[in-house]
Amino acid sequence: MLFSEEEYRARLAGVRVRMTRQGLSALLVTDPANIYYLTGYNAWSFYTPQLVFVPADGPMLLFTRAMDAGGAFRTSWLPSECVVGYPEQYVHRPHVHPFDWVAFALRERYLIAPAAKGCVGLEMDSHFFSPKAYRSLVNAIPEWTLVDSFELVNWVRSIKSPAEVQLMRGAAQVCMAAMEAAVETIDVGVRQCDAAAAISQAQIKGANGIGGDYPAIVPMLPTGEAADTPHLTWSEDRFEAGQAVVIELAGAHHRYHTPLARTLTLGKKPDRLAKLADAVADGLNAVLTEVQPGVPVRELARAWNWTLAKYGLEKPSRIGYSIGIGYPPDWGERTISIRSEDESVLAENMTFHVIGGMWMDNYGYELSESIRVTADGVETFTSFPRELIQKGG
Amino acid sequence: MLFSEEEYRARLAGVRVRMTRQGLSALLVTDPANIYYLTGYNAWSFYTPQLVFVPADGPMLLFTRAMDAGGAFRTSWLPSECVVGYPEQYVHRPHVHPFDWVAFALRERYLIAPAAKGCVGLEMDSHFFSPKAYRSLVNAIPEWTLVDSFELVNWVRSIKSPAEVQLMRGAAQVCMAAMEAAVETIDVGVRQCDAAAAISQAQIKGANGIGGDYPAIVPMLPTGEAADTPHLTWSEDRFEAGQAVVIELAGAHHRYHTPLARTLTLGKKPDRLAKLADAVADGLNAVLTEVQPGVPVRELARAWNWTLAKYGLEKPSRIGYSIGIGYPPDWGERTISIRSEDESVLAENMTFHVIGGMWMDNYGYELSESIRVTADGVETFTSFPRELIQKGG
Repeated sequence: MLFSEEEYRARLAGVRVRMTRQGLSALLVTDPANIYYLTGYNAWSFYTPQLVFVPADGPMLLFTRAMDAGGAFRTSWLPSECVVGYPEQYVHRPHVHPFDWVAFALRERYLIAPAAKGCVGLEMDSHFFSPKAYRSLVNAIPEWTLVDSFELVNWVRSIKSPAEVQLMRGAAQVCMAAMEAAVETIDVGVRQCDAAAAISQAQIKGANGIGGDYPAIVPMLPTGEAADTPHLTWSEDRFEAGQAVVIELAGAHHRYHTPLARTLTLGKKPDRLAKLADAVADGLNAVLTEVQPGVPVRELARAWNWTLAKYGLEKPSRIGYSIGIGYPPDWGERTISIRSEDESVLAENMTFHVIGGMWMDNYGYELSESIRVTADGVETFTSFPRELIQKGG
Repeated sequence: MLFSEEEYRARLAGVRVRMTRQGLSALLVTDPANIYYLTGYNAWSFYTPQLVFVPADGPMLLFTRAMDAGGAFRTSWLPSECVVGYPEQYVHRPHVHPFDWVAFALRERYLIAPAAKGCVGLEMDSHFFSPKAYRSLVNAIPEWTLVDSFELVNWVRSIKSPAEVQLMRGAAQVCMAAMEAAVETIDVGVRQCDAAAAISQAQIKGANGIGGDYPAIVPMLPTGEAADTPHLTWSEDRFEAGQAVVIELAGAHHRYHTPLARTLTLGKKPDRLAKLADAVADGLNAVLTEVQPGVPVRELARAWNWTLAKYGLEKPSRIGYSIGIGYPPDWGERTISIRSEDESVLAENMTFHVIGGMWMDNYGYELSESIRVTADGVETFTSFPRELIQKGG
């Protein structure tokens, strides 16, 4: 088992503290990252509906497709009587939903009534929890007052345990190897897909005896004029002399992520890009200097905006977000975003991906670090030179 | 552009025929595969909400995050005035949702009233369409009667055009290279992650000049006793002599997939596995022999069940599903499932992943083919020997 039973129990206790505060007598967890956090269950089975029932007292129940339930003990710490498989006939059918069956199973176990004493929380904005799944629960359990739990478990995840920090340090070593593979492979005449293949191999192989896990997002390589668009995936085009390539990737280790972005020019750095790189590096340094427990997150955004303004620049999007466990399609935790509107305050062992990304017309630049808030400052997980990389020219 | 404008217009026309039949005056499309099918838009941006508004007449409108909207023209055939970005402040905030803004934008464009003349279809069970997103639309547009469109676009996708078949043939070449990499790499003493790394590299590099795209599912390598569980991902364990490894992977090319599964033993085939392999091969052959336009899908399930019964075996889960475009976490189309309860009838240019997968206690066996229904029979996309692979021993 990857974490001790004490750690899992502490996580559950943390969730229950928030449940009480939010007036929830039970919580239904559907986000695969939250399911992994609470139960350890880890499989590529989240394309069919899954759910963890967390009552105020008593054991959690994990519901998966029957085909997956039998093997859940291979990754989860839950005893096998707490893992329940719904029948195959409920998969991908137009007029039934697996949660019809799950609701019945909860009723059969006499779990509906105790949970009806307060509100029951749902992850109303999690990936893989569809409106059909929601309506199935609404219809099948009229006794319950269903309310949004508002990323309750995600918020518990925002502060990492020492064991989690260790896994993120492992992910950071994988990340370094992947970034090195990117810088080594990307070159004039090489196809984008060949560079992505080399990065992916390094990400999964891992480094220094630490095996890689699949990152929640594939390597991003916005190139040339398309570098003004952050989320295009690779093509079969060949890199050309004079192009700049934004490289955004992550190392993953047991589902924990440390992302990293750098920008590379094939040939001499164009002036406008070199200037932008200076501004972004300056801005990122200003942000990292502010990091300390007790500092409001919006202060980080202010440090960034203030520094960029000196260069006559501004960035409308957030400059980072909380990170940790990730499943496709996102390695962010969907809690803290580093921007002026955020009301969170930094605490020790929070972890972030801080991104200086500027998407200009027809070009772009990105420079980022994955960081941990320490007792009195900041730890950067990786140590890749914080600069615009020039190759050839 | 990957497809002609004629092809895109034909797809839209096909969707509108079904809209009329289902009484829909507009359709909201949120599944990234359906968005790609209709608009060509292809980016790893589906972790924030996206939507295509398809009215009964007039142009489609694509809504994405502002950061992504600017670059949509790089993959989409929609004119830039039909791509609308919602502001960054709506991303990952607890009390607002991007679709609040989208609803207002539709209202501003006077598109609410015409669509209110019938029902408006929603993809109630698509990944990445959350209950919160749904409620945001319900609240913001009370004029609309929102109903489930029941995978409307997915059903249009079920029959492939010649251009799509060509892409799937490209994907098949990538798939063959990836399976060869798997068979070559998996060996006694090799870590599972090293094999997955080699497979992933082959998948993305591609083969015969055809570049690989990221598959919607990572390579699956259930091994040894864990081979009774289909969806566990790789570990850092080393393969051991005597183990059997189930290999399930896909080639992807411009988001089109051809999956393939084989099973490999490290050393002499255990008797029980060899017998299971014979039964499954026999069953799969029986299924493929039945394939022909006009045949009910349930007949394929019957051929399978009948053959397996002769060996005293049965499989409770479906033995295949419709394939084509895929985004994580699934390469299936979520329409036709090959099982007794399915009411579809085979038609030319439908494409399936037909899976003989048997998950026994402590071991498993999988053998599959990606196929196309031809004018008078079946085309298998790949030509990998249809047998239990023995390595060493």
